[in-house]
Amino acid sequence: MDTQQTKSGSASALVPGASASPFDGSTHRVRRANLQAALQHVYRERVTSRASISKDTGLTRATVSDLILQLVRSGLVREIGPGTSSGGKPPTLLGLNADGRAIVAIDLSRQPFRGALLDLTGGIVQRIDGRRDAVRGDAGVEEVFRLVGSLVSSASAPVLGIGVGTPGIVDADGAVVEASNLAWHGVPLRRELAIRTQLPVTVANDAHASALAEFETTHASANLVVVKVGVGIGAGIVVDGHLHLGDRPAAGEIGHIRVVEPGLPCHCGNTGCLETVASVPSIVRSAAAIAGVDDDDGRPWEVRQLSAAFGPEPVWNAIREAGRNVGAVLANVVAILDIHRVVVSLEIDGGLEPFLDAIRTEVASRVLPDLAPVIDVSAGESGPDLVISGAAAMVLRHELGVMWR
Amino acid sequence: MDTQQTKSGSASALVPGASASPFDGSTHRVRRANLQAALQHVYRERVTSRASISKDTGLTRATVSDLILQLVRSGLVREIGPGTSSGGKPPTLLGLNADGRAIVAIDLSRQPFRGALLDLTGGIVQRIDGRRDAVRGDAGVEEVFRLVGSLVSSASAPVLGIGVGTPGIVDADGAVVEASNLAWHGVPLRRELAIRTQLPVTVANDAHASALAEFETTHASANLVVVKVGVGIGAGIVVDGHLHLGDRPAAGEIGHIRVVEPGLPCHCGNTGCLETVASVPSIVRSAAAIAGVDDDDGRPWEVRQLSAAFGPEPVWNAIREAGRNVGAVLANVVAILDIHRVVVSLEIDGGLEPFLDAIRTEVASRVLPDLAPVIDVSAGESGPDLVISGAAAMVLRHELGVMWR
Repeated sequence: MDTQQTKSGSASALVPGASASPFDGSTHRVRRANLQAALQHVYRERVTSRASISKDTGLTRATVSDLILQLVRSGLVREIGPGTSSGGKPPTLLGLNADGRAIVAIDLSRQPFRGALLDLTGGIVQRIDGRRDAVRGDAGVEEVFRLVGSLVSSASAPVLGIGVGTPGIVDADGAVVEASNLAWHGVPLRRELAIRTQLPVTVANDAHASALAEFETTHASANLVVVKVGVGIGAGIVVDGHLHLGDRPAAGEIGHIRVVEPGLPCHCGNTGCLETVASVPSIVRSAAAIAGVDDDDGRPWEVRQLSAAFGPEPVWNAIREAGRNVGAVLANVVAILDIHRVVVSLEIDGGLEPFLDAIRTEVASRVLPDLAPVIDVSAGESGPDLVISGAAAMVLRHELGVMWR
Repeated sequence: MDTQQTKSGSASALVPGASASPFDGSTHRVRRANLQAALQHVYRERVTSRASISKDTGLTRATVSDLILQLVRSGLVREIGPGTSSGGKPPTLLGLNADGRAIVAIDLSRQPFRGALLDLTGGIVQRIDGRRDAVRGDAGVEEVFRLVGSLVSSASAPVLGIGVGTPGIVDADGAVVEASNLAWHGVPLRRELAIRTQLPVTVANDAHASALAEFETTHASANLVVVKVGVGIGAGIVVDGHLHLGDRPAAGEIGHIRVVEPGLPCHCGNTGCLETVASVPSIVRSAAAIAGVDDDDGRPWEVRQLSAAFGPEPVWNAIREAGRNVGAVLANVVAILDIHRVVVSLEIDGGLEPFLDAIRTEVASRVLPDLAPVIDVSAGESGPDLVISGAAAMVLRHELGVMWR
């Protein structure tokens, strides 16, 4: 299992009599694997037929017909109409029933929090933003409950599950062990949400969710690192197509690697951590210091607004210096893991290109000379909804055993 | 596949009529998987019976009897004698036929090179050391051929295969792309050895082989980092029980992570690399410099001998300073991968404990405070034959599909 899964099982009862997942505990292991194989085929092909599924999976036509019957009855797959005949009766085309289930996804990596309802294809059908003044401590936890409750009650299809991407370290039961940027210490988020909603809930680190989304929604290679730079800095690592979680699990916690000796004190207790010189708040502070202007800490994270306050040069310089520090750490990541594709997200609108350039230059100057030309540091393809997509992808993996790619 | 496998197939003809591997190309895929499952059971249990194998694998008694017949005939398994009856006929006990095959393993990470013949349990039955003056360039390649030839011709059982652990980067065909400490650039080692011996050959990076050995021969956790400090510095990373190879594959190339700004020039073309301040030659140079004594570069790597030349304090100080630099890099490895178990080998006899202490102190000062107490930096359990064991483990995985643990 890649991330933390609900213990409450997969049966949902939003619509009486309808189970949100057709693969509940009563389904035999082999039959469940076959249902997942058939559904994954439909996900991959978009439009297909029973004959194609039989050919692709090696299952008999009779078995496939039986599986599709169950998938159609449970509302995941639908018959689209007749296809082209290759002689004889034309096949019935099958497709995903995108609106057959809703997925609730929550992104706690941005302030305010954000939530969305997605359909089974990963398309966002509804968005909701949290309150700006409810992003920390107990108020933050209550805000998550409010966003989830609102999305669940407005869903027009049975809810397959709830996925949450959060900063910090998440334990095997989906509790947030430590998220200093949210002032959360030991918040049993998965359990609380599961009790309140009686739905399957998955909670994962935001950078881990992002890496999963980048891997599943693009044609990225099987090895991949995704770096998120916002209030904190974290990475998600995909190794051979699997999310690498680590022993705690807390893989990718690069924000507390020391890059300045001795450096400024960090909230973690050490000094000179990457977050002290490359997080978005530290970039804003640095731009303000360069400009000699007071930083009132309430500005939106946009290059245009920051430039208006501090002047363009201080902002660019601060962004480039942060990029150099991130690049120094990423050079180590690349050397240690020999992963050539790195995807970066920066939560300053309009600031990504100079940030990427500074990272690329620093990485190239630090890795083995023959490695430098093949390292690909880029903005990724999934944009600002990366955590939302990843949180939904976790639900899809856990409840239906399929992925988008 | 974890490492680079021979393309020449598994059939060996040292003993006419005997195939060294019973799992050659003509064996059906499913039967081969069953043979491997039965043999892995014998490896794990040491002494077992057909009934136990049947119970463990879920295969029928008749199938197991048939598989064991083939494994006994091919000389991998032997009947030990009658066991204790639980009523009725006593079962025939089965065990590994340790001497049924020989494995040739070569360690190029030390100077001089070393080789060994191992039995099927991984026990070393014969050792051979290379010449001190043949450790680089073409002379080094010829020396590998000589060591392998000598070991193959002295084997008293069919040779299952040849495993080589080498410094540097090894490509997917077992060629050594770059091993600057051997002055090798693009040496097609696997292919040359396969042509000369007509045996299956596996070539892997020495640190990768070490990580495999540490994982298989100890009860180490599924996530593990092994660091080798000798002429060069490299690491092998086991993630969820699999060797992580990386994209090139060159995972674990930590010797060229920059730790000193700007630092001394490194042979790789960059400056301030870990190898410039923590490899064994750099430790010897540093001790000599502290003592103000000429370093003649020909001393054996032993604390006693180095202390006689430079005095004890300069030697301890140089070892501790190198340990601090290795610790700074390992703190990053731990933060990035969240792997808590780190095994270190240092090729200075008698120098490991102060080296480990310095690493532990540096790692603890750099990782997140709550992580420091759970990081286990140790000497490992497999000792100086780690690369030999790893090279043999690769052969066993590739030719028989089994591992020691």
